[in-house]
Amino acid sequence: MHAQPADTVLAPRGLPDEGRFRAVIESVTPQVDGGRFAAKRVVGDEVVVEADCFADGHDAVVAVLCWRRDGDEGWHAAAMTPLGNDRWRGRFEVGELGRWWYTVTAWVDGFQSWRRDLARRVDAEDIRMAALVGADLIDDAATRADEADRDALRAWARRLRDEVEGSAAGDPQVLKALGLDVPLGEIAARRPDRRFAATHAALPLDVDRPLARFGAWYELFPRSTARLAGAHGTLRDLAERLPDIAAMGFDVLYLPPIHPVGRERRKGPNNTLVAAPDDVGSPWAIGAAEGGHLAVHPPLGSADDLRHLVAKAREHRLEIALDVALQCAPDHPWVAEHPEWFRRRPDGSVQYAENPPKKYQDIYPFDFESADWQAMWVALAGIFRHWADEGVRVFRVDNPHTKAFPFWEWAIGELRRDHPDLIFLSEAFTRPRVMHRLAKLGFTQSYTYFTWRNTRHELTEYFTELAHGPGADYFRPNVWPNTPDILPEYLQLGGRAAFIVRLVLAATLAASYGIYGPAFELMEHLPREPGSEEYLNSEKYQIRAWERDRTDSLAALIGRVNRIRRDNPALHSNASLRFLTIDNEQLIAYAKTTPNLDNVVVVVANLDPHNVHSGWLEFDPAAFGVEHDASFQMHDLLSGARYLWSSARNFIRLDPQRLPVHLFLLRRRVRNERDFDYFL
Amino acid sequence: MHAQPADTVLAPRGLPDEGRFRAVIESVTPQVDGGRFAAKRVVGDEVVVEADCFADGHDAVVAVLCWRRDGDEGWHAAAMTPLGNDRWRGRFEVGELGRWWYTVTAWVDGFQSWRRDLARRVDAEDIRMAALVGADLIDDAATRADEADRDALRAWARRLRDEVEGSAAGDPQVLKALGLDVPLGEIAARRPDRRFAATHAALPLDVDRPLARFGAWYELFPRSTARLAGAHGTLRDLAERLPDIAAMGFDVLYLPPIHPVGRERRKGPNNTLVAAPDDVGSPWAIGAAEGGHLAVHPPLGSADDLRHLVAKAREHRLEIALDVALQCAPDHPWVAEHPEWFRRRPDGSVQYAENPPKKYQDIYPFDFESADWQAMWVALAGIFRHWADEGVRVFRVDNPHTKAFPFWEWAIGELRRDHPDLIFLSEAFTRPRVMHRLAKLGFTQSYTYFTWRNTRHELTEYFTELAHGPGADYFRPNVWPNTPDILPEYLQLGGRAAFIVRLVLAATLAASYGIYGPAFELMEHLPREPGSEEYLNSEKYQIRAWERDRTDSLAALIGRVNRIRRDNPALHSNASLRFLTIDNEQLIAYAKTTPNLDNVVVVVANLDPHNVHSGWLEFDPAAFGVEHDASFQMHDLLSGARYLWSSARNFIRLDPQRLPVHLFLLRRRVRNERDFDYFL
Repeated sequence: MHAQPADTVLAPRGLPDEGRFRAVIESVTPQVDGGRFAAKRVVGDEVVVEADCFADGHDAVVAVLCWRRDGDEGWHAAAMTPLGNDRWRGRFEVGELGRWWYTVTAWVDGFQSWRRDLARRVDAEDIRMAALVGADLIDDAATRADEADRDALRAWARRLRDEVEGSAAGDPQVLKALGLDVPLGEIAARRPDRRFAATHAALPLDVDRPLARFGAWYELFPRSTARLAGAHGTLRDLAERLPDIAAMGFDVLYLPPIHPVGRERRKGPNNTLVAAPDDVGSPWAIGAAEGGHLAVHPPLGSADDLRHLVAKAREHRLEIALDVALQCAPDHPWVAEHPEWFRRRPDGSVQYAENPPKKYQDIYPFDFESADWQAMWVALAGIFRHWADEGVRVFRVDNPHTKAFPFWEWAIGELRRDHPDLIFLSEAFTRPRVMHRLAKLGFTQSYTYFTWRNTRHELTEYFTELAHGPGADYFRPNVWPNTPDILPEYLQLGGRAAFIVRLVLAATLAASYGIYGPAFELMEHLPREPGSEEYLNSEKYQIRAWERDRTDSLAALIGRVNRIRRDNPALHSNASLRFLTIDNEQLIAYAKTTPNLDNVVVVVANLDPHNVHSGWLEFDPAAFGVEHDASFQMHDLLSGARYLWSSARNFIRLDPQRLPVHLFLLRRRVRNERDFDYFL
Repeated sequence: MHAQPADTVLAPRGLPDEGRFRAVIESVTPQVDGGRFAAKRVVGDEVVVEADCFADGHDAVVAVLCWRRDGDEGWHAAAMTPLGNDRWRGRFEVGELGRWWYTVTAWVDGFQSWRRDLARRVDAEDIRMAALVGADLIDDAATRADEADRDALRAWARRLRDEVEGSAAGDPQVLKALGLDVPLGEIAARRPDRRFAATHAALPLDVDRPLARFGAWYELFPRSTARLAGAHGTLRDLAERLPDIAAMGFDVLYLPPIHPVGRERRKGPNNTLVAAPDDVGSPWAIGAAEGGHLAVHPPLGSADDLRHLVAKAREHRLEIALDVALQCAPDHPWVAEHPEWFRRRPDGSVQYAENPPKKYQDIYPFDFESADWQAMWVALAGIFRHWADEGVRVFRVDNPHTKAFPFWEWAIGELRRDHPDLIFLSEAFTRPRVMHRLAKLGFTQSYTYFTWRNTRHELTEYFTELAHGPGADYFRPNVWPNTPDILPEYLQLGGRAAFIVRLVLAATLAASYGIYGPAFELMEHLPREPGSEEYLNSEKYQIRAWERDRTDSLAALIGRVNRIRRDNPALHSNASLRFLTIDNEQLIAYAKTTPNLDNVVVVVANLDPHNVHSGWLEFDPAAFGVEHDASFQMHDLLSGARYLWSSARNFIRLDPQRLPVHLFLLRRRVRNERDFDYFL
């Protein structure tokens, strides 16, 4: 009578093989483009993973975080904790370099549902029935357990059944207590019924060295390091300079290309089209008869000299970074050896770089649509491989956005498989999507727009995005107040205060920053012509003799700033950055902290390099772990001055002629064993 | 000499088959969970698709939007337009119901790069060289063209070459003009070199009837429609009521379950546990000796009567919606026929619904972990199939969140494959993630939290999320001021003004809304007990005789509101919703518009049902297409009053004892052919 009429029976087309996967896992974080790319962390990080995990109905859901290093067989697993509203959180620590994977698995758990419901039951008959249901669930868990657990679980199930049928006829309170036994519950929980567990697709994570997140970079031209003014400096000369650079507190010493400089169409000083016979040319015009990307420019020295420099640098806690520019001077050996790697013009000549109407006839770009792309990829990646084999572990890549994206994903992936400690800095000053794509493809760090962000509004918006925006899991900013290509107007016009402000902003807003020196510490500020961001007499085209011992050099101040960075872990990452309110547009204020607030750094800077500015800073001590109404000290680590603050509003006055910034450490009042108060 | 040393040669491991895909496509919108689920639109919509499309370097990128109906062979295609910052936009119209697919393809285009660069070139020799490069590109396009185009392209290439080599030795201006020829350029552009085109994974789109987005629903209990007070109403009685319901301007008439009501453990009036012999029980306790989900409750009538009702309703522009509650009364035939579809208790009895310590012993839930789940799924989907075959096209699904998610995805997918005009309303008053999941799985519309959102802050936040949040592409709200389960406190205490305000908010904030009547229009406001949201003498458990012709009935007002909805396309979707600023917390104001602003509706409501409130409304006429300084009329379509506004601030005063809302149509001043101004 109630059989379905034939026309209402659905053919079971499209039925899944298993329809009982009731749990859902959504919105796992971190996650870059649905797992297409890896999130980034550094060794020692605790990775916090969150996910939405839920199921139909009211049954209890269990969610577990799973992780492993690439290549490991099994998965580590740890229970996740519900945060409310179906969001769950778990953590794991990444102790080793390289590729890791993580995922989330979740299921509807009959045993946990039973326990939760048992605790809520009041009716005696209900509780007796529930005890029998539980006994079945526990017996079921026993079938999945090892021998010791199995016996314990079977005994537990038996006690529940005996209690129901025993003399007390199942005293509800006794039954409830027995069913809710904590140690036995933990044993059963170790053997859940995961037949219908849902598991999210595994997500990739790249674990780098701490230097990938936190480091101070110093760029200089080795050929300007000769003792004798005007002479061509060498890598050996540079090795002599290492103590000074180390004294400034830098972590990375980065060199423009060190390869033979092309002679054909060599540029003269200030980028003039015709070079005189003894003009040194641009190091980015790579390749000449002496060799290409795998050779050292003979006037700089030999491969031996580079190895010597790398080793010496290490003694000074410095790493050498090389600039890799994938382009050729017309006389680069590859131009003749691999004509198919370059595009030809109708007259048979090689197509030089151009951006019409501009022409760069001294530079031949590689043709990433070449039919011989595979051999070319291997050769280009081989450049990094070669210098990695020479001991170099940090590369700054010139204009990576003008090379095909698939190449970078492949090359960085391959190189990091063998050398997971490699660091690649992307020098792509281009559109946001392109910069982000390069970071996703594997670049460890990225240049930013910091160089042109000067106002409070610009800085606040940009660094909020960098620290907390969707790129925070993969785009690591490395910010530069100047580079050999960029002398920003602010530095041209702002004098000493401008250099100090930009230095401190860079060093504290971003965990990684760099300067191009000695131009920076000597406050070089003349542009090639008004309106230009090019340096006058730029080192890109000529040797410069720097008066490094000038009394107004910022070297000592830079050293102090870098030591403050090292000493204060709050400055070692960007995740904690928060901007503070101050009632003067020319003043910017922000704080960085460690996660547990045991290190709090507050920076206030006067962005107007010409005038004194003052204002009231809103600073809520409670938000930084200072107890209510407790006074605390703000210790300016740059000037040494100390201020006693207690209210939530404090007066700030910054004179650019003296120091245009405060770099405060918050010191809490503590009492020692002799009842004296001091500030820690 | 420059061959790479053996140890620097990378083995070409991991090289892709093709590495020359230079273009990237990211962040395509609309997109639900990376394409795992379909976005939703209705027939006639123009689907706006956006994507980030870019490549390395400076070459020109071309992006194309592709779309097709499910099952169609080829793809339609249309060029996308760059919006700046690497974002592109394209559009297509969906003219038919069902599943559609769309994707984006993009490539680096040599021909377009050549044209763009040619326009910028100034050097004569450059232009001559470029003309020859272009001739090669055009010849290349010719090889991909049909015969007519091929000849035109070859001729073009030849003219370029001849011009370079001709008597004028390649006059640069002539060459430039020839290369930039627009009609010829369009021919070449039709045959691009797409060898290295990147294509995004195809994304699904479900196209529904317009009713899926815009409709007014009216719920009532058929058994309360008898002419004779106290008698059991029938579907034939209900058919008599259709003109009244149609006169109120509704689109959907939705009935609680119409199946045989279980006798075992039947509930009495006001949800008492024991029913008297002539108590009618709850329609949600489905199934008795007379049949289950495929049968009509005999006191209501027959399957014939339902068909009659469906047909009659259609004459009144009304659709019948049925409530499908997937649960059984203890005497539902399936309980005996399919014992494996239900969970058993240790005593062999069927496990009733419970949420300890609460028990619902009159309801047996289906066990979605049943070993016989496949047969059960087919039978449950067969319920919808059965009533669809009887002409029903709209289903309200009771508590879908207590049934396994995979079932819904399969069942709705299968049912819509045969009946793409089906509409499923999800009655899941539960946690946000669960409600969203059901919408993603295929539910056409969803109940919301509107019923409990009363303050301006709550309404603004919630409807901003619904209209513009991440769910806007798949979660279609259907908002209800009351339901048989929910008499909210605001209606219990607020009197007539409260009912009017909630009606107008529902009808204008959301394109789909519904009321449960006649309780609503008769302003039924007594709860079962203080603090309860249950109706006193709820129709869920007893027949009610309604005094429908009471002079204070809101029926006429409801009719006016629904006619205003139909007449004003601004109210047919939620996408244009924007809240306006008004300086009194008790007043809420918002606007809805058509995309081209030819219909602008502004609602202002007094949320305090007891007191007069006034305030200044900020209304920027320019944002609504009114010319600067032009005056315009605000025509209150409810009261008929007209106001002449011109400034950006206008005074509002709303007296709940009269009408607590303005429902304004903005009328622009226009001049007719006899030079008279009037308001359109």
